[in-house]
Amino acid sequence: MKVLCPGSFDPITVGHLDVVRRAHALFGEVVVAIGNNSTKSYLFDFDERVELVKGATSDLDGITVEAMDGLLVDFCRQRGIPAVVKGLRFGADFDFELQMAHMNQEMGDIETVLLPAAREHVTLSSTIIRQVVRLGGDVSRYVPPNVQEALAARFPRG
Amino acid sequence: MKVLCPGSFDPITVGHLDVVRRAHALFGEVVVAIGNNSTKSYLFDFDERVELVKGATSDLDGITVEAMDGLLVDFCRQRGIPAVVKGLRFGADFDFELQMAHMNQEMGDIETVLLPAAREHVTLSSTIIRQVVRLGGDVSRYVPPNVQEALAARFPRG
Amino acid sequence: MKVLCPGSFDPITVGHLDVVRRAHALFGEVVVAIGNNSTKSYLFDFDERVELVKGATSDLDGITVEAMDGLLVDFCRQRGIPAVVKGLRFGADFDFELQMAHMNQEMGDIETVLLPAAREHVTLSSTIIRQVVRLGGDVSRYVPPNVQEALAARFPRG
Amino acid sequence: MKVLCPGSFDPITVGHLDVVRRAHALFGEVVVAIGNNSTKSYLFDFDERVELVKGATSDLDGITVEAMDGLLVDFCRQRGIPAVVKGLRFGADFDFELQMAHMNQEMGDIETVLLPAAREHVTLSSTIIRQVVRLGGDVSRYVPPNVQEALAARFPRG
Amino acid sequence: MKVLCPGSFDPITVGHLDVVRRAHALFGEVVVAIGNNSTKSYLFDFDERVELVKGATSDLDGITVEAMDGLLVDFCRQRGIPAVVKGLRFGADFDFELQMAHMNQEMGDIETVLLPAAREHVTLSSTIIRQVVRLGGDVSRYVPPNVQEALAARFPRG
Amino acid sequence: MKVLCPGSFDPITVGHLDVVRRAHALFGEVVVAIGNNSTKSYLFDFDERVELVKGATSDLDGITVEAMDGLLVDFCRQRGIPAVVKGLRFGADFDFELQMAHMNQEMGDIETVLLPAAREHVTLSSTIIRQVVRLGGDVSRYVPPNVQEALAARFPRG
Repeated sequence: MKVLCPGSFDPITVGHLDVVRRAHALFGEVVVAIGNNSTKSYLFDFDERVELVKGATSDLDGITVEAMDGLLVDFCRQRGIPAVVKGLRFGADFDFELQMAHMNQEMGDIETVLLPAAREHVTLSSTIIRQVVRLGGDVSRYVPPNVQEALAARFPRG
Repeated sequence: MKVLCPGSFDPITVGHLDVVRRAHALFGEVVVAIGNNSTKSYLFDFDERVELVKGATSDLDGITVEAMDGLLVDFCRQRGIPAVVKGLRFGADFDFELQMAHMNQEMGDIETVLLPAAREHVTLSSTIIRQVVRLGGDVSRYVPPNVQEALAARFPRG
Repeated sequence: MKVLCPGSFDPITVGHLDVVRRAHALFGEVVVAIGNNSTKSYLFDFDERVELVKGATSDLDGITVEAMDGLLVDFCRQRGIPAVVKGLRFGADFDFELQMAHMNQEMGDIETVLLPAAREHVTLSSTIIRQVVRLGGDVSRYVPPNVQEALAARFPRG
Repeated sequence: MKVLCPGSFDPITVGHLDVVRRAHALFGEVVVAIGNNSTKSYLFDFDERVELVKGATSDLDGITVEAMDGLLVDFCRQRGIPAVVKGLRFGADFDFELQMAHMNQEMGDIETVLLPAAREHVTLSSTIIRQVVRLGGDVSRYVPPNVQEALAARFPRG
Repeated sequence: MKVLCPGSFDPITVGHLDVVRRAHALFGEVVVAIGNNSTKSYLFDFDERVELVKGATSDLDGITVEAMDGLLVDFCRQRGIPAVVKGLRFGADFDFELQMAHMNQEMGDIETVLLPAAREHVTLSSTIIRQVVRLGGDVSRYVPPNVQEALAARFPRG
Repeated sequence: MKVLCPGSFDPITVGHLDVVRRAHALFGEVVVAIGNNSTKSYLFDFDERVELVKGATSDLDGITVEAMDGLLVDFCRQRGIPAVVKGLRFGADFDFELQMAHMNQEMGDIETVLLPAAREHVTLSSTIIRQVVRLGGDVSRYVPPNVQEALAARFPRG
């Protein structure tokens, strides 16, 4: 089955990567869809995020990476994707996921599958990682090697 | 892929049934495992619960129903089942599911998949249904027809 | 409008009393319904709890206190009560209230109204008060005077 | 009793409408107060939102719609409104409502009444509806007919 | 400062032990107080739990282990202990801790300090560990070595 | 032990002040670190916030107030501070605190201590206080006297 792993991936973390790999193990074929929100300020731009996710998943067959500009349900219908797979870290995150799941079900007959975060990734947060990076901190333990290289080039530390 | 839907199913509700059917649609082969806890007082005994789940799922190929006496990880290993599928209704339920998921991963390399409850089942609760049944209430809209028949026979309403 | 304030009130606390008084101010007529669950072990028995709630609310017109043995929806229908009023202290409590609200709506067309706990009562808990009483602690600040007298008679402190 | 239903209503959804109607059934007279926050970017401007709420509630006597520019407690005092009525969908939302309830109580002696979302509206979200609208999606099942017309005029779909 | 780490410790886990060690590092002197609830059914009895905690903490100076029969505030007053230290794993656990903290403050002027669970212990649960033990599972990675020995003696695995 | 109380303190409330005083009572020496985020719009600027916290804590020895521009772990290492102390009001806040706690532990070996909000401060919110101030409301009961004076000078009420 082909499934969708959507996200902004700014940048992709070891937590995101774990979810993508587990989705791949369960379903065989994964489309990672990089979203964009023109009102947000990103650390890496749209194209860079696509490239970083490609680099981080290049060892696996059956994973494709695409930019997703419009509605998730349209994106899935065009590609024949029946289900979305997302990681879940906290109960509070579930409120939002449940809202999305019901709308995606009703608007496009898309199923939602949630994978509980692995023990070592429960409290990983892209938001906090971005804040630390902007203040010059070292986040190498939280991101794949190719992201760490991109961060080092973009934000050289003292 | 063969997956496990565990639970006490006392009794199976339309919410449980929805999760089993969605697991079946995603993975093809589902083992519904009825658990038993000798310290709990059930509405229906072990054998009855197995029969009620069998009756409620008899229209689908690829679903088997079994009693599960011991550890979930042992049950899965003996049958070559790599993943558990459970419904998730509330953020607060997730705390417990995350504890179980990490232990099942570490003790038996079992993956956990959570399916968000459908809109019409988010607040269905076996616990409250049992209380209502014991007080003589009509729960027919919350259970499959064969369970409703069993309830009517067991708890005749004035 | 006549509304229902249900609970086990074992014993009634200043937090419960605040909810009953606010329901009275909003709706004019309140029936306090004391529930009973034969599998629970209570601090005060059914009749005592009814008397303690009566004593604590005796200064207000328009409040009646009754024992409630069966289903809440049956109790309300027999008395022409269209709505239930309950206090809400924590987000986690809301999960349970939402389950009850949907079943009471669907089974008996009963509306549910939730009153957020006052600042000084947010963390009051009958469960913890009972534990403290059983260990000989002084809970006089958390209960009305007539309950404090009943506790002093039942659990004399060293 | 006259009660206040405050919100930004951008746009009013079937979930909002359900809360207004239930407040009307419980209390008889409802003022729907449309708030404005100059730092937010709205789908519909202040006047449009007032008109859309008026259109959606025009079949009911006893409902008035007003713009609310300043403090809620000042707005209520000027109109002799003793209580606010709001819908509640998730436990996590309650944290914020409890903060508001305590401040409104202390600053203006305003009571707060929370109505649990109906089963079919628990996961409706104006925020997600706005996102879907901006991406060209069809949200007609989540909004009243006059809002759907306004959306169709504003955001024509391919 | 002397602080109290209370709990039922049935049995002490690596998560409990981490909290005790961190409390020791912060405050220097720790009294671990083993509680008992005559209505609960324990895996290890009162004396065994005291001995297992003593064994698990014997390498540290400044830690004493005691049985606590009565009220926590009385226990602390008799020993001149001004603060309680507890681990916190989930937001939902905080509701209960806040109730206890306010009562201990008001009844005995006892301060409460919460230590967030370490990454590797966030989802450890004594309750689930006990269930696994009773079903014959291996929990050696979740408990200190002396507890593992006691478990092996008590619950020999096939 | 020297501990850090970090925050934006825009403005410092009686709830913040309670946490600082309790940290001082527990640990003896407290550095209050005022953070700054160039993308946020503050009620009081960086220097004003530092002065207001100094004014509110001037009666206590052992409290110093500093601006914190960079990473918390760097700030602590430079000053030999081993632990952070923060207030906790809601379970939902804990999700964020746990994320921060794990990163501060892993990046700088910094311990995190959480103090549950006092009963009268559980629902105090700087965010809502700022909104009320901007709309001309009186928040004097929620802030120390020197902050109230600064607010009166900055936002004169009709």
